[in-house]
Amino acid sequence: MTEFTGNHILSVNQFDRDAIEKVFSVAHSMEPYARREKRTTVLNGAILGNLFFEPSTRTRVSFGTAFNLLGGEVRETTGMDNSALAKGESLFDTARVLSGYSDIIAMRHPAAGSVSEFAEGSRVPVINGGDGANEHPTQALLDLFTIKRELNYHGAGIDGLHIAMIGDLRYGRTVHSLSRLLCLFKNIRFTLISPAELAMPQPIVDAIKDAGHQLTITDQLEGNMDADICYQTRIQEERFPSQEEANRYRGKFRLNQAIYTRHFQSKTVIMHPLPRDSRMEANELDIDLNVNPNLAIFRQTDNGVLVRMALFALTLGVEDLVSKYERDVVWHSNKSS
Amino acid sequence: MTEFTGNHILSVNQFDRDAIEKVFSVAHSMEPYARREKRTTVLNGAILGNLFFEPSTRTRVSFGTAFNLLGGEVRETTGMDNSALAKGESLFDTARVLSGYSDIIAMRHPAAGSVSEFAEGSRVPVINGGDGANEHPTQALLDLFTIKRELNYHGAGIDGLHIAMIGDLRYGRTVHSLSRLLCLFKNIRFTLISPAELAMPQPIVDAIKDAGHQLTITDQLEGNMDADICYQTRIQEERFPSQEEANRYRGKFRLNQAIYTRHFQSKTVIMHPLPRDSRMEANELDIDLNVNPNLAIFRQTDNGVLVRMALFALTLGVEDLVSKYERDVVWHSNKSS
Amino acid sequence: MTEFTGNHILSVNQFDRDAIEKVFSVAHSMEPYARREKRTTVLNGAILGNLFFEPSTRTRVSFGTAFNLLGGEVRETTGMDNSALAKGESLFDTARVLSGYSDIIAMRHPAAGSVSEFAEGSRVPVINGGDGANEHPTQALLDLFTIKRELNYHGAGIDGLHIAMIGDLRYGRTVHSLSRLLCLFKNIRFTLISPAELAMPQPIVDAIKDAGHQLTITDQLEGNMDADICYQTRIQEERFPSQEEANRYRGKFRLNQAIYTRHFQSKTVIMHPLPRDSRMEANELDIDLNVNPNLAIFRQTDNGVLVRMALFALTLGVEDLVSKYERDVVWHSNKSS
Repeated sequence: MTEFTGNHILSVNQFDRDAIEKVFSVAHSMEPYARREKRTTVLNGAILGNLFFEPSTRTRVSFGTAFNLLGGEVRETTGMDNSALAKGESLFDTARVLSGYSDIIAMRHPAAGSVSEFAEGSRVPVINGGDGANEHPTQALLDLFTIKRELNYHGAGIDGLHIAMIGDLRYGRTVHSLSRLLCLFKNIRFTLISPAELAMPQPIVDAIKDAGHQLTITDQLEGNMDADICYQTRIQEERFPSQEEANRYRGKFRLNQAIYTRHFQSKTVIMHPLPRDSRMEANELDIDLNVNPNLAIFRQTDNGVLVRMALFALTLGVEDLVSKYERDVVWHSNKSS
Repeated sequence: MTEFTGNHILSVNQFDRDAIEKVFSVAHSMEPYARREKRTTVLNGAILGNLFFEPSTRTRVSFGTAFNLLGGEVRETTGMDNSALAKGESLFDTARVLSGYSDIIAMRHPAAGSVSEFAEGSRVPVINGGDGANEHPTQALLDLFTIKRELNYHGAGIDGLHIAMIGDLRYGRTVHSLSRLLCLFKNIRFTLISPAELAMPQPIVDAIKDAGHQLTITDQLEGNMDADICYQTRIQEERFPSQEEANRYRGKFRLNQAIYTRHFQSKTVIMHPLPRDSRMEANELDIDLNVNPNLAIFRQTDNGVLVRMALFALTLGVEDLVSKYERDVVWHSNKSS
Repeated sequence: MTEFTGNHILSVNQFDRDAIEKVFSVAHSMEPYARREKRTTVLNGAILGNLFFEPSTRTRVSFGTAFNLLGGEVRETTGMDNSALAKGESLFDTARVLSGYSDIIAMRHPAAGSVSEFAEGSRVPVINGGDGANEHPTQALLDLFTIKRELNYHGAGIDGLHIAMIGDLRYGRTVHSLSRLLCLFKNIRFTLISPAELAMPQPIVDAIKDAGHQLTITDQLEGNMDADICYQTRIQEERFPSQEEANRYRGKFRLNQAIYTRHFQSKTVIMHPLPRDSRMEANELDIDLNVNPNLAIFRQTDNGVLVRMALFALTLGVEDLVSKYERDVVWHSNKSS
């Protein structure tokens, strides 16, 4: 990736290490605006087309907020345009029309490949907000940005990281994209913990090996938890052929404070793409971890705003103008306190 | 209530008389902005999270408009986030995530207590826009603000008021909250007119008595209408055990101009929380009252914008800065004429 | 039509030729803002109520974008307010309430006549965004504006135009309104091409004749295509009594580049109200026309933004202030390049 300005962001495969570092540097510079220590008017008058053909409240609002924080306006759509669909309109036509209504587009759509197809018809840059089982590049970038920040806090960097990925590694889109980004760094140690039925797909395993990283594949939590980062994803029991099959794994990948204390490093950072299941019978992160300072799950979503602000600023070519258009925040904010 | 800035607004029970007077004083100062005689940029760059997990067009738009009138931006969601719900996310998690996306939140949700539960996880102030059968404090405040303004117009104040409440007093959330607020004032006379099946709940009756106010309970409209304020609420016939039961009351609580002229004081103000049923067979306010200058139902919804502007300004601590950031309105407005 | 400021825009019948020329002149002046060569803050602080009681993504977003481009804010609703409807609220009440929340309203509703009924209760100007089978005046104006611009490009004007309308002329609301507007011009030649079952309604045929224009009615594409403008509308096969009936016309009104080359003038402009059906079996415009420079379908939707900006500016009385509030665009735009 040589240039952000005016270009689409469709896949993690577009990013080389320099591009990632650029995004993270700009994202970091956005923090005073997100924390309401100041605000910026750099995108006053600009319009984001926030096109969520598949509903996703938090991703949609995160994109919209990121654009508002830069001073821009948001026009939005949620769900399929049933009339246009019923009339057989192509994604190309939809893109030609809707790209006349905004300066940049963030788009989610349930069909894999749809956002790229849309981008071909668009006259403005398109940022992929998730296209079915395919890609969700801003999630992967915010996950990696969180890893970088959490490690920096402990005096380390991404190179040399040990990451454990736990849960559904087969269908979890986020761990696939994050693994691909991590392959661009040096000397990563991956520990992939899942039921055999939900193991990481072979192409990603091959990519990790080809990039020369260390790799352990296991279905056991115990004995494998000396990681710097523990990235957990939800196991959807309906993925198994039968409930009996699913029951074999119930509780085996659930984390709580007692397990954390017994098995983890004292500084292991816990991540999760959210939402997490907080019901009693859930197979995920117990709420007793909420007071654990290394639970980074809410810092992840906050970081998502910073990363999306950075991508908007870079794509619209204003990354160096943000501070020039700085203004005071005159209202009281709990966030800046 | 000692302090608005940075705090949630969840219940009418938070308000003492001083707090109410403060809200009304700020609401009154908002009128030139709502009438478009001028505008303000005080909240330029601020973001409202307008989270309507239960749809309600007018309340949602009223909150959004109030925030826009102060110069702020609005990010919105309507309806349940089915994906997060299906995945068992807690309100605490939802709040932690979504409060990262805005400076203040207005929230409606169908479950009683949900907004308070959400507020515990939120890092920004939350204003309750209605949580099921429980509370809708901004409606109660706009109702009381309307009463104050209508009485002031006739040279009176809230102390010493005679209010008649008519219709479904059992399930009508608005009359419950309004009664609680009125209890904070002096020497109020309540006339509660309803079918016995739909009488005011005993805890509120007790609160009225305990506060030393006068109270009449009846199922007869006639002979009880020398009130300053007549607050009508809709009787939902499906509340009765049978249609025969419901029919006994049909038409008995319906108001029209003829009844007004015959039974009411010439200056009795008519209020209603809206929407009202304008169909022929309805049991409510006839449209022939539309030309009656004492029909205050549309002033109520206009006042709702003023009250919500006041609550936003107070909660964000900018109530004294609004006029400092004043600008001219350059477009033609029917409202300021 | 003598005056735009403060008035509703409900029907094409409101417009005389002077009014149309005024709209087009203002629309033309909006182009630098829509192309992002500059921006304007003239409506900073103003609020559009974008009330789409019937969903229509592109029309809704087009109105919202037009208002944002003038510097204003947008509050929006999509779909029916089921709670208010279920409670029997009248359009008059809805209008009285919602018009308290904005400075101007754009409204779509599935019921013919509903927007006019709403406008009677509204205290701010209402622009009809489509009321069922009745009217969609901004579509007619953007179609005519497109015709004017395309003809001007070829050195001609609307007077003396030859337009061919093809497809479903019976149910196609857009061709009805466009025909009525064209009747205000001089010496127009109409060629109306449709199956007999889908012919132009007699009142419009009469209006064309009464205005002294030339008229040809046919069900044959061939031999009738020496038009300046070819306006195609979709034939909905479900309009026919049987599929056999529909099949008689299948493919007879479909346009592609080969037909264009064989039958049309080299400069004939192709228009369509969109969406078009791009599926293989469709009866419309082939995608091989996408590279034809005279395919104006996407310029139509772009022009829609200009026309809606003009109507907002005129209705709010700021058409002469737009450039006074001009600002630089500081972000990169593909549109201005």
